[in-house]
Amino acid sequence: MKRTKIADALRGELVSQEINIKGWVRTKRGNKAVNFIALNDGSTIHNIQIVADLAQFDAALMAQITTGACISVIGKLVESQGSGQSVEVQASAIEIYGTADPTTYPLQKKGHSLEFLREIAHLRPRTNTFGAIYRIRHHMAIAIHTFFHNKGYYYFHAPLITGSDCEGAGQMFQVTTLNQDCPPRTKEGEVDYRKDFFGRHTSLTVSGQLEGEMAAMAMGGIYTFGPTFRAENSNTPRHLAEFWMIEPEVAFLEIEENMDLAEEFIKYCVQWALDNCMDDISFLGDHFDKELVSRLQFVLEKPFVRLSYTEGIRILEEAVKNGTKFEFPIYWGADLASEHERYLVEEHFKTPVIMTDYPKEIKSFYMKLNEDGKTVRGMDVLFPKIGEIIGGSEREADYDKLVARAQEMGVPEKDIWWYLDSRRYGTAPHSGFGLGFERLLLFVTGMSNIRDVIPFPRTPNNAEF
Amino acid sequence: MKRTKIADALRGELVSQEINIKGWVRTKRGNKAVNFIALNDGSTIHNIQIVADLAQFDAALMAQITTGACISVIGKLVESQGSGQSVEVQASAIEIYGTADPTTYPLQKKGHSLEFLREIAHLRPRTNTFGAIYRIRHHMAIAIHTFFHNKGYYYFHAPLITGSDCEGAGQMFQVTTLNQDCPPRTKEGEVDYRKDFFGRHTSLTVSGQLEGEMAAMAMGGIYTFGPTFRAENSNTPRHLAEFWMIEPEVAFLEIEENMDLAEEFIKYCVQWALDNCMDDISFLGDHFDKELVSRLQFVLEKPFVRLSYTEGIRILEEAVKNGTKFEFPIYWGADLASEHERYLVEEHFKTPVIMTDYPKEIKSFYMKLNEDGKTVRGMDVLFPKIGEIIGGSEREADYDKLVARAQEMGVPEKDIWWYLDSRRYGTAPHSGFGLGFERLLLFVTGMSNIRDVIPFPRTPNNAEF
Repeated sequence: MKRTKIADALRGELVSQEINIKGWVRTKRGNKAVNFIALNDGSTIHNIQIVADLAQFDAALMAQITTGACISVIGKLVESQGSGQSVEVQASAIEIYGTADPTTYPLQKKGHSLEFLREIAHLRPRTNTFGAIYRIRHHMAIAIHTFFHNKGYYYFHAPLITGSDCEGAGQMFQVTTLNQDCPPRTKEGEVDYRKDFFGRHTSLTVSGQLEGEMAAMAMGGIYTFGPTFRAENSNTPRHLAEFWMIEPEVAFLEIEENMDLAEEFIKYCVQWALDNCMDDISFLGDHFDKELVSRLQFVLEKPFVRLSYTEGIRILEEAVKNGTKFEFPIYWGADLASEHERYLVEEHFKTPVIMTDYPKEIKSFYMKLNEDGKTVRGMDVLFPKIGEIIGGSEREADYDKLVARAQEMGVPEKDIWWYLDSRRYGTAPHSGFGLGFERLLLFVTGMSNIRDVIPFPRTPNNAEF
Repeated sequence: MKRTKIADALRGELVSQEINIKGWVRTKRGNKAVNFIALNDGSTIHNIQIVADLAQFDAALMAQITTGACISVIGKLVESQGSGQSVEVQASAIEIYGTADPTTYPLQKKGHSLEFLREIAHLRPRTNTFGAIYRIRHHMAIAIHTFFHNKGYYYFHAPLITGSDCEGAGQMFQVTTLNQDCPPRTKEGEVDYRKDFFGRHTSLTVSGQLEGEMAAMAMGGIYTFGPTFRAENSNTPRHLAEFWMIEPEVAFLEIEENMDLAEEFIKYCVQWALDNCMDDISFLGDHFDKELVSRLQFVLEKPFVRLSYTEGIRILEEAVKNGTKFEFPIYWGADLASEHERYLVEEHFKTPVIMTDYPKEIKSFYMKLNEDGKTVRGMDVLFPKIGEIIGGSEREADYDKLVARAQEMGVPEKDIWWYLDSRRYGTAPHSGFGLGFERLLLFVTGMSNIRDVIPFPRTPNNAEF
């Protein structure tokens, strides 16, 4: 008999048919005559109620049905007598696939702290909270691929292992097959990386952007969606050592169109979540963040405000004058802190903000220099609650200017000879941006710790599983 | 004026309209009166012909239009007078975005060897061959996500950095932030990995399967699609140190249904390629592999043959008796070589083969043991030209049998305590398989070196770009 998913059974179209449901027991309750088993199979956050007439089933079998056990049930789908569910299954046969000893199974029905669940990350998908989060994570990935595919942009895989640290985006992890205890050494006594697997010192990438640009300058529009790494010793709710990034790069796109793309993209993802994940979002909203749904609707409502960094600083300075207190000082040239970004978004404009034209000193060498010679065509999309969600720019298309900026920022030309080739041969205006996938998920799920939106978080001193 | 993609212009619906085309010059030819420029923008393998009446354009400007230059052209789309194309653009304005000095630009119009193009992997997307390959790569990724999403399976991200080497699938790369020259040491003089970033020795994953199973045992069906790594010193056309894998894991699926899933999946991908990538496939077929299209159609035609390893060995022994020569010996217990797999597929059955029930000694500890105690429910899908394209199995669901097999295979229980939990609590029958993405691409593109189907290949002594 073919298995019916619980999500399909709950739609009610199969009422009065005999079906086979398989899943994991969430709870069992009842009386001397009948037991009610709440079963979940991951297809939806909702459980289906199994009604077992105890006269029909062996007591020893029923005793094995405890929270966490896996069972297969055959029975008739009927309209429910009780409140809280529309349909239920009147069990005629129950098979036990796997028991879960109540004395040791860590997920009993009482609530668990998110901290505790991180320690059993291999079991937390079995909770309502993480089932919801991972289903939303899936949907956001599908939304991203669908968005770019429909635009004719190609999914492009940048390499993970890289020989250069030219982006300077952060500390890198070294990748090696050398013997750590006793590495081969040169005559001068230095570690001899020529004997390493790749014949050189290699690291894990911090961004696929530069390689992505190489593809954009031939294929038009591309996007990466892959893991990136930071070896920063940051034990905060916003940092991971391993996370997923989406980085579109598009030829012939200038900064204004890049802003259009970023805004359209993120609204598309949020709309997709509201259209496809409402059961899960409602659950998370009820349990973790009462304002979740309204915050998601909020970003869809209006065009994002676009303003220059210079104008943003003026507004923040004005705010300070009028008594707003910030932890970090505000002056032209300062890198904005999350408190500043959130003030602009949540207090001043009450809408997401795209900030542009940053001082060149606080941005990367590859951003296009404005004619003022002081600012670059960077753009950050700032969101309520989480601050910066997207960072991007028009890229410097001019070979000489790019070389000069690389020198100023201390990026060795020998590491980026191939990147410079794209401006030497057939250069074109182009733009791109990066979205941290887990930042998006924090926003869409309403969770507040980034370790709770990736299945197996990697952070300082933590690489279990 | 809004840019029109070349793929859209070639459809012909815009004939007699003025359009703006942007792209890279493939060739320029002509006479004293008129120049014909073949322009490509990556949206299709086909170029559009730009016709420039030299009386209208500055000679200095025209001189800058050489192979590799990037230009923007405004002109009227008209039906073509010449042969070889249906429409062309009569240029009224040309802007040069970037020149490409013909004395140094590496991609002149003459053909280049694939070996040479690997050395300029940052520029090879600008060739017909690699444009075609990367477009097909994109389409196969979209096909994969669409297939699983439509089945209700969730995209799941397994971690890349891992603390354990329990799968034993191959040599691993070490990930570290320790000072290589002078690492911290314990009192006993050993390298002190407690001081490493994760507080332990860590490596790059060889497979996301085990973590994927944890998700399947809560969410029903999941699939991974991410990078995996092998630090094997294999300089062959079939091996990469960094490659992408797709690994579905599905609860309540037994071996027969797992075979159905694998066959349906791979046929879906091949059909998608034929439906969406025919221009690119035809080009690659013409240039690299005359039998490409017929080989793709071949796998769609018939159900795959399913046979046991034992039966396969019998057929191969019979073939040897009848005079077929193999390099490697054939006997029950031997691991099949590519020559054996191809004999079965290409000579004997003339259809793809799914082989099952392998000797337990040559398969991993997590495969379900058959009742004979000798064989396991593994399954390999064998394809023409490339041999094994998918490897999978029903997973051992029984806690005691799994522990015994792990012990036999030398997998330390302390490394897989979390994996064993899935059988300790609410175990269920489940199955899965792995597909090497680049193996699939070798098959679909007809290319013969795996370094040519991934943008920036990582192999021994090669991590450039």
